[in-house]
Amino acid sequence: MEKVNIREKLALFSDHWNPRVVGELNGQHVKLVKFQGEFVWHHHAGEDELFLVIRGSFRLEFRDRSVTLSAGEFMVVPRGVEHRPVAEQEVEVMLFEPAQIKHTGDVESHLTVHEFERI
Amino acid sequence: MEKVNIREKLALFSDHWNPRVVGELNGQHVKLVKFQGEFVWHHHAGEDELFLVIRGSFRLEFRDRSVTLSAGEFMVVPRGVEHRPVAEQEVEVMLFEPAQIKHTGDVESHLTVHEFERI
Repeated sequence: MEKVNIREKLALFSDHWNPRVVGELNGQHVKLVKFQGEFVWHHHAGEDELFLVIRGSFRLEFRDRSVTLSAGEFMVVPRGVEHRPVAEQEVEVMLFEPAQIKHTGDVESHLTVHEFERI
Repeated sequence: MEKVNIREKLALFSDHWNPRVVGELNGQHVKLVKFQGEFVWHHHAGEDELFLVIRGSFRLEFRDRSVTLSAGEFMVVPRGVEHRPVAEQEVEVMLFEPAQIKHTGDVESHLTVHEFERI
């Protein structure tokens, strides 16, 4: 049971689209991730997913619209809703989601991470 | 499905120790709360609780030690662990915890909130 400094954790990695687990509670994971560029379209059949921007901004695309999220803003993507994060510039994001979530849902991509590293 | 701006939500209330629900996912609530002064000692028998500081700092007291959390830091208090937040000055905090959690566990206090407002 230790406190977590978000900036310190973000300084430990520099790659994109590779979420690190930094906390766990009630079967949920807290993750930190850096986005840059375009992710893959996907959805999670059984998991809602929260995106909270720590630094920068990015566009969360849905099939019928897109939402720009900036530092200090968050959004919950309900289960079943197809989405794709797109970041013109690097953005740092906190994720909150069930521990068993699959990174890209049922889509397999070169970006897919199968086991999330804990830092 | 709308984005949430944390600062805008925090501007909607000024009382202390009264968490507002600002998001829900996977049976968990995202709450925002302002602390000032001393809360009551309590624990949650079945729920882990995450405290993430948005602005300011506060002391999270345990029976055997205390931890100071500042903006950009979070801590998970596991179920069963007695704790008490103490804030010398006002602090703004995001909580992440199961929707069914009781504010002060089995302790009844004049500070206890029985139904959390959604904003």
